[in-house]
Amino acid sequence: MLTVPGIRAIIEVLRANPSQVKEIWIAKGKRLSRLEEVISICEREGIPVYFKNPKDISLLLPNITHQGAVAIISEFKYVSLDEFLKKIEGQDSYLTVIALDHITDEGNFASIIRTAVFFGAKGIIIPKKRSVSVSSQVLKRSSGACFYIPIVRVTNMAQALEKLSKKGLWIVGTSPEANVSLYKFDWNRDLVLVLGNEQKGIGHSVQKVCHEIVNIPIFGAIDSLNVAVSAGVFLSEIVRQRQKN
Amino acid sequence: MLTVPGIRAIIEVLRANPSQVKEIWIAKGKRLSRLEEVISICEREGIPVYFKNPKDISLLLPNITHQGAVAIISEFKYVSLDEFLKKIEGQDSYLTVIALDHITDEGNFASIIRTAVFFGAKGIIIPKKRSVSVSSQVLKRSSGACFYIPIVRVTNMAQALEKLSKKGLWIVGTSPEANVSLYKFDWNRDLVLVLGNEQKGIGHSVQKVCHEIVNIPIFGAIDSLNVAVSAGVFLSEIVRQRQKN
Repeated sequence: MLTVPGIRAIIEVLRANPSQVKEIWIAKGKRLSRLEEVISICEREGIPVYFKNPKDISLLLPNITHQGAVAIISEFKYVSLDEFLKKIEGQDSYLTVIALDHITDEGNFASIIRTAVFFGAKGIIIPKKRSVSVSSQVLKRSSGACFYIPIVRVTNMAQALEKLSKKGLWIVGTSPEANVSLYKFDWNRDLVLVLGNEQKGIGHSVQKVCHEIVNIPIFGAIDSLNVAVSAGVFLSEIVRQRQKN
Repeated sequence: MLTVPGIRAIIEVLRANPSQVKEIWIAKGKRLSRLEEVISICEREGIPVYFKNPKDISLLLPNITHQGAVAIISEFKYVSLDEFLKKIEGQDSYLTVIALDHITDEGNFASIIRTAVFFGAKGIIIPKKRSVSVSSQVLKRSSGACFYIPIVRVTNMAQALEKLSKKGLWIVGTSPEANVSLYKFDWNRDLVLVLGNEQKGIGHSVQKVCHEIVNIPIFGAIDSLNVAVSAGVFLSEIVRQRQKN
């Protein structure tokens, strides 16, 4: 069982995948401007809506701002690597896939998911161990964007990237120490953009699989960007270059 | 009195402005890899270092992860608009100034400060009311980047932007509803980039002062980006275009 807190995330899961939703809890007396949409989808789809004591909702969701509304789903559906490889076959525009090599901050993960969907990336790959996963907090903070992009969990990131490489995707790592600027790199190809851990960056085994490692040139006194901001900067440059074609 | 929590932020304030630091507290028995640099600067500058009970540090900083180290400074030094206008006179490269029209999330503010310094922006303007300010949380989460960029607090944002406009800066607003794409806009000019509130965007009075309003084109199912990620995307495109010259 997994909870989806917050009205916006609830609407996204109901729109994207209503069959996944078991029930909705709403705090008694709560007036939410977008509640009507929730209730009308639940009516149509036969999803029960329960009006609960605010306390009961807070007990279910310790330390999460839930805005008095929560959806209960069975579990988050990750996609397997093989399913994903089938899904991306035969696309007619250049592909962007994102690989997160041991990101540990849920806020960063949520922000990257949202940004990836915004810029039209086709999937996000995360490792099973020592990594964020799709928790209630991530569902809330990404405002439900997780339901619009396949999220693939793999046991071994380097091996997964090798498989993608064999399918013809370029594996492009990112690091402040790289010599190639993202503005000079040619992003017109199918690719996996690899972002590393907040402190340690990309691990050695994953670096070895990368065809190229690129950086964001520094223009000031601070030498590193937050990884979620970096993701936005890279994805923006990718779509900018491709737009021209 | 203001606290600067976290070893990285402490090092930044000591490097940027040691005379501001009154004392340093370090948790007894704490082994920090970068502590030697802190202690050697404190010795040179005559700043007292106190070894405290971890509990005492936590009492001083409720709800903040302080990593067992905190600097105590008298206050954060904002820059007045007039001082700032003098500071930016006679620059030989194109100027970027950032204006935050009622940002309310401290994490977003901290991330924007860091990104602004990274991409070489020359200052950040915030309103005095209904806005984030430089708190201990912001100092920690920006890893001390606040000490590398003037932060200007103004009573009336629209009037402040008018003053900057009269000095020859273009006032460029950002909004998902704008028709001009950031990739098409010519960023080769002195300018103020205006980012709006997380929910409401840029207010009417500020919109009126803008010479142009630009957007980030959407490529997916989600129609808005986090404001801190947007800041990174805009600043990256600005430096990319200017790099060519």
